[in-house]
Amino acid sequence: MIYITRKEHFNAAHRLFKPEFSDEKNLEVFGKCSNPNWHGHNYELFVTVKGEVNPDTGFLINLKELSGIINRYVIDKLDHKNVNLEVDFMSGRLASTENLAIAIWEQLEAPVREAGARLHCIKLYETERNFVEYYGN
Amino acid sequence: MIYITRKEHFNAAHRLFKPEFSDEKNLEVFGKCSNPNWHGHNYELFVTVKGEVNPDTGFLINLKELSGIINRYVIDKLDHKNVNLEVDFMSGRLASTENLAIAIWEQLEAPVREAGARLHCIKLYETERNFVEYYGN
Amino acid sequence: MIYITRKEHFNAAHRLFKPEFSDEKNLEVFGKCSNPNWHGHNYELFVTVKGEVNPDTGFLINLKELSGIINRYVIDKLDHKNVNLEVDFMSGRLASTENLAIAIWEQLEAPVREAGARLHCIKLYETERNFVEYYGN
Amino acid sequence: MIYITRKEHFNAAHRLFKPEFSDEKNLEVFGKCSNPNWHGHNYELFVTVKGEVNPDTGFLINLKELSGIINRYVIDKLDHKNVNLEVDFMSGRLASTENLAIAIWEQLEAPVREAGARLHCIKLYETERNFVEYYGN
Amino acid sequence: MIYITRKEHFNAAHRLFKPEFSDEKNLEVFGKCSNPNWHGHNYELFVTVKGEVNPDTGFLINLKELSGIINRYVIDKLDHKNVNLEVDFMSGRLASTENLAIAIWEQLEAPVREAGARLHCIKLYETERNFVEYYGN
Amino acid sequence: MIYITRKEHFNAAHRLFKPEFSDEKNLEVFGKCSNPNWHGHNYELFVTVKGEVNPDTGFLINLKELSGIINRYVIDKLDHKNVNLEVDFMSGRLASTENLAIAIWEQLEAPVREAGARLHCIKLYETERNFVEYYGN
Repeated sequence: MIYITRKEHFNAAHRLFKPEFSDEKNLEVFGKCSNPNWHGHNYELFVTVKGEVNPDTGFLINLKELSGIINRYVIDKLDHKNVNLEVDFMSGRLASTENLAIAIWEQLEAPVREAGARLHCIKLYETERNFVEYYGN
Repeated sequence: MIYITRKEHFNAAHRLFKPEFSDEKNLEVFGKCSNPNWHGHNYELFVTVKGEVNPDTGFLINLKELSGIINRYVIDKLDHKNVNLEVDFMSGRLASTENLAIAIWEQLEAPVREAGARLHCIKLYETERNFVEYYGN
Repeated sequence: MIYITRKEHFNAAHRLFKPEFSDEKNLEVFGKCSNPNWHGHNYELFVTVKGEVNPDTGFLINLKELSGIINRYVIDKLDHKNVNLEVDFMSGRLASTENLAIAIWEQLEAPVREAGARLHCIKLYETERNFVEYYGN
Repeated sequence: MIYITRKEHFNAAHRLFKPEFSDEKNLEVFGKCSNPNWHGHNYELFVTVKGEVNPDTGFLINLKELSGIINRYVIDKLDHKNVNLEVDFMSGRLASTENLAIAIWEQLEAPVREAGARLHCIKLYETERNFVEYYGN
Repeated sequence: MIYITRKEHFNAAHRLFKPEFSDEKNLEVFGKCSNPNWHGHNYELFVTVKGEVNPDTGFLINLKELSGIINRYVIDKLDHKNVNLEVDFMSGRLASTENLAIAIWEQLEAPVREAGARLHCIKLYETERNFVEYYGN
Repeated sequence: MIYITRKEHFNAAHRLFKPEFSDEKNLEVFGKCSNPNWHGHNYELFVTVKGEVNPDTGFLINLKELSGIINRYVIDKLDHKNVNLEVDFMSGRLASTENLAIAIWEQLEAPVREAGARLHCIKLYETERNFVEYYGN
C-alpha cells in the first residue's frame, strides 16, 4: 500500500452565517467571518489517494489523471467563485472549512475509485495557520 | 541606512470590474476575476521601512510599534472585508493588487514618518505566484 | 470524525544537559546543544484536535477558542522564555523536543476536552528540518 | 510512543520509461517524463522513525545519528546522480517516485532498527505539488 | 512606477562542464555538478516587470498575458528538458544558473516590451538555498 | 553585473538589554525580548554577492566557496551560541537584528572581496515575520 498526494489551489469568497439568524446573531456566533459583504481565501487543497503500485508503470495513479479529476470535480467549481452562492455541492451547507472538506471528499470518492485508486484524505488549508483533514466516515 | 520588514496578512473579498462596463465586457477584460459574486484571497503584506539604527536601542524602529501602525491603518480596515465595498481608502478605485499596494503606501507613509522611519517598499502577495512592489513615486 | 489543526509559534532558549553530568560529559552526549550559555529556536507548534462537526455552526471547534486555549496553557508560558529555567510544566525534565511535545500534550488534553473536542496530535518543529509528533499514550 | 522526523534533500536526474517500449510508446504512457535526454528534480525526503523516549537523554534517537544514517544509505547514493543509471538500489526498477520511496524504505529499515528505533514513514516530494508516502508493507 | 512579479517553475536536467576539459578536470572545477550522467533541479523562476498602472484596468500588465509570454518563450523550452542538449537559447553556453538567468532575460526582454511593460529582474532558484538575480546590463 | 545569494541558518540565544539599565527599565524599553534568562531564534541568513560572470566557469563565484566563507566567518561563531556572551564580533553591541546584520556584513566584506566578488546585501530573518536588510554604508 502506497499513498500519493496532489496539491491544488483555488481562490474563493465565502461567509459563515445561518440564514435563520439575524446579522447580529451571526456576528456573535461567527465573528468577523460572518461579514455580509463576504471575505475570501487562497485555499490550498491536498488530495491523498492510496493503493498498490502498478508494476507496468511504477505508478499508483498517473498524476496528470489525478490532477484532471480534481480540477474537473472540484477546482473548476470553486475557483474564483462564491462558496455560498455558486457551488452546487455546497448548496444548503454552512460554508465552513470542515463542511467544504467533507463535500470535496464526496465529490472525489467515486471518480478516484473509477481511476483505480482509493481516496484516503482531504486536507484543506483555509489560511497558513488553519487546516482541516477528513478521512471519510 | 538599514531596512527592516514586517510581514502581516489579511483575508478579503474583491472583484475586478468597471461599473460602466456590462458584466460581459468586464468578463472579457478581467476574466474570472470579474465574477459579480466576488472571490477572495489570503493577502500577504510586507512593509519595509528604512533609516538609521538608534544607538540607544539598537533598533531602527520598534517592531511592535511598526506592527501596530500597520494594523491600525491597513489590516483593521481590510481583514475579512470586501475591498470594493467596505474599504474607505479604496473607494472609487479598481480593486487590483497594483492599486491596493499604492493605496496601502498612502495610508502608511505619514504614520511611519511620525514614528521616526521612512517607508521604503510595499510588497503585496495576492497569491503565492503573483505579487506587486511599490516604492512611492 | 474530522480533524482540525491550528498552528502557533513561540521563541525560546534552551539547553540539553543533565545536571548530574559534567560540562564535558554533557558535551559528549548532547554536542553543541549542551552549550552552558544556552541557544534557542523559533518553535512551530501544530495542535490537531478531532471530533464531530456541530451541525449548528459547521465547526468542530471555534478556532478562536482553540487558539485561546493554546495561548493560555502553552504559548504564554513558553514564548520568549528559557525552557529549562522558567517553564513550570518542564521542571525536572530534559528540555528535548520529544519531552516538550509530551508536556504540551499534557497541558492541552483537559482544556481541549472541556471545549468539546479531543486532542489528536502535537506536532512540534524545533527547526525546519526536525520535528516531533506525539499522539498520547 | 513518539515519532521524530528528519528532512534531507537531494538533486537527481531521472527518466520514466520501460526499456522494452519504443520512445513513442514511452511518450504515450509517461508523457514528457519519458524524455530520453533526462530531466531532474530537487527531491525533499522526510524520514519518520518511532519508539520510546530514552529517559537518560530525552531522545528517541540522536538526530545527528539519524541524519548520518540517511546520508550514508540514501543521500550519498542519490545526490547529483542519475536515478536510472547510477543508483544500485534502483537497478531494474522504474524510476517513479513511488518506487524510489519504497527503495529508500528498504535501505533504511535495518540501520534504523540497529540504532534503536523503528522506521515509520518515508515521505518523498518530487515537486512542491506531488509527494508519496510509504509505511512499509 | 510599479513592479509586478510572476512565479513559474520548470524541472530540468543539466551538467556543469566544459567540453574541452577531461572528466577529471571537470570534476576538479565543478565538483559533483559535473556528473557525466546528469543531475537535475526543480527550478523556480520569478519574472519582475515594471511600468505604469493603466488607469482603465488597474493593471500594469495582465498577469495571464505575462504568464503566457513566460511559458511560450521560456518554460515550454526548459520544462522536463536537458538544459545542455535541448534548449536552443543555451546552446554553446555553460549551463550554470548565472548563464541560465541571463539567457532567460534575453528571451523575455522583447516580448515583455511588446506587451507594454519593461523587464526588471530575472530571479532564478536552483535550490531552496541558492538563487541568482539579473537586472540586464 | 549579476547577483547570487546563498542561504544559511543558525540557532542562537540572545537578550535585548542595556547593562546600564535596571531589569525594569529594560523591560519597559525592550519588552519580553529583555528576559534576563534569554530566549532564542532560528535565524535565516541570506548573503548576496555581485560581480561579473567568469566565462571559464559560468560562475560569479563558486557557491561551495561562498558557503565555506559564510560558515567560517559567521555561522561557526553564532550557531548554538549566546549572541550576547559568546560572539566576539558582537562584543559591546546591543544584540538586535539590525546590529547583527551590520556585524555580519563587516565579517564578510573582506573575505568575499578576496574571493573575487563584492558583498551586496545581508538579509537576516529573526522570525518568519521580521527581517533586516543591510547594503553597507
